[in-house]
Amino acid sequence: MNVNELPIGVFDSGLGGLTAVRELKEILPHENIVYFGDTGRLPYGTRSAETIIKYACDDMNFLLTNSVKAVLIACGTVSSTALGVLKSSFDVPIFGVVEPASAEAVSLTKKKKIAVLATPSTISAKAFDKAIAGIDGSVSVCGIGCPMFVPLVENGYIGEDCFVTKEIVNEYLSKLENFAPDVIILGCTHYPLIKSIISKTACEKFGKTEIVDSGKVSAHALKKYLDQNGMAKTDGEGFTRYYVSDEPHNFGKTASLFLGEQVDNVSKIDMEEYLYKK
Amino acid sequence: MNVNELPIGVFDSGLGGLTAVRELKEILPHENIVYFGDTGRLPYGTRSAETIIKYACDDMNFLLTNSVKAVLIACGTVSSTALGVLKSSFDVPIFGVVEPASAEAVSLTKKKKIAVLATPSTISAKAFDKAIAGIDGSVSVCGIGCPMFVPLVENGYIGEDCFVTKEIVNEYLSKLENFAPDVIILGCTHYPLIKSIISKTACEKFGKTEIVDSGKVSAHALKKYLDQNGMAKTDGEGFTRYYVSDEPHNFGKTASLFLGEQVDNVSKIDMEEYLYKK
Repeated sequence: MNVNELPIGVFDSGLGGLTAVRELKEILPHENIVYFGDTGRLPYGTRSAETIIKYACDDMNFLLTNSVKAVLIACGTVSSTALGVLKSSFDVPIFGVVEPASAEAVSLTKKKKIAVLATPSTISAKAFDKAIAGIDGSVSVCGIGCPMFVPLVENGYIGEDCFVTKEIVNEYLSKLENFAPDVIILGCTHYPLIKSIISKTACEKFGKTEIVDSGKVSAHALKKYLDQNGMAKTDGEGFTRYYVSDEPHNFGKTASLFLGEQVDNVSKIDMEEYLYKK
Repeated sequence: MNVNELPIGVFDSGLGGLTAVRELKEILPHENIVYFGDTGRLPYGTRSAETIIKYACDDMNFLLTNSVKAVLIACGTVSSTALGVLKSSFDVPIFGVVEPASAEAVSLTKKKKIAVLATPSTISAKAFDKAIAGIDGSVSVCGIGCPMFVPLVENGYIGEDCFVTKEIVNEYLSKLENFAPDVIILGCTHYPLIKSIISKTACEKFGKTEIVDSGKVSAHALKKYLDQNGMAKTDGEGFTRYYVSDEPHNFGKTASLFLGEQVDNVSKIDMEEYLYKK
């Protein structure tokens, strides 16, 4: 089979990566996508680097059984912690969210002050700090770990008027009051679901603030790579298959709401069959 | 070695089971305890029954390598979902939290109305409903799934004045306004850490409300069994070893705070070495 016809692999700890899938379907409508959400082991962002790397290797191992032509790590935590290990362990082009989101943020900041909201593991890894320093050393970066955002999103506390989420957003953004960024990177692909609350609170606190959705910009980086390397699929309607490591029904329901289309092709896999051995 | 000298095994998805350990250390000070917290795969309470049973079998598999004389499942989710499977799969006395907490609640209720606050998986399993019906069929039970309590507790939102936790407690207890219980079972061993907020809110809404801490009463049930069967250790100072499936440092720090004593003997195990095969 021609490489162009092969699917793109996308993975995340759970639902968050669908923010990237939605964008991929929009900008690469002909591509087939294999999505994996590790719902049996989520969340990743409060675990140790060692555990995240292990889980990410298993996830890659599964995706590669689907003959994917490229992989998008639609997970800020894995992108920040495991990208290097994955690139050296697996023979397929792999894209994370850190580089594209950092480049976008640097292009947008006028005050040269970028904040990163992400999981505690991502903040500890300092991957966004390093990527931004590599692009423009004069830009300051301030990272804030936001451990409650994933549970809030996974449990549906995403309405614009949601009192609890507004309170937690306020708590985390208050830590940026002295720093006062003009660009905020959502360094976890779950966070776009509460983007409007984050954006509104940030604008109240810091004035006009641009929000960078890391899943979305990384989808564009992947498109650019496929186009430049003649690897894109250029005709036919793309089809997305979803796999999870826990019960598929709830995932399908939430994914349908989220993507605005019926998602009934969700299958459960047995993770133990894909444990990665070096 | 005499069976009395063997340790007690205790496990939970994470920190919650320490509420039972604290009680065990108080009432059985001579016993050695092996505690396992599956921090690499927590939380359990939002996963499917199939996945919870699988994980619980792995956890038991690990504890049995420590020659434990009895096991306390210090986890409401596992007790509600997997107790039967564990009892038929493993040859050791196994105790859950559901039966003791149900018996205690039935003995306390005057209005014959018991509410259960627990994880969504526990509520779906209806184990408390069945246990209470088996003790007194005239008692009504109303279960409320509280998916945000574990993330709140694991992230330290446990202060009596914590605004967000008070808001979420109020949200869940509001669902009981028509039912108006006089006894509430905390059906997850994490919840005692926010017991005072739950108790205060319940008393405001329903009048005097007794709170049953399921981890605590199950420790007493285990003591009774050991005493009645001549299996208790009756001298020497008990020692507790802690094992986790992710990075041990943070667990030790939080456990120290929680148990009010230095916890530095926490080891990480590789869960893949203990995967249970039927």
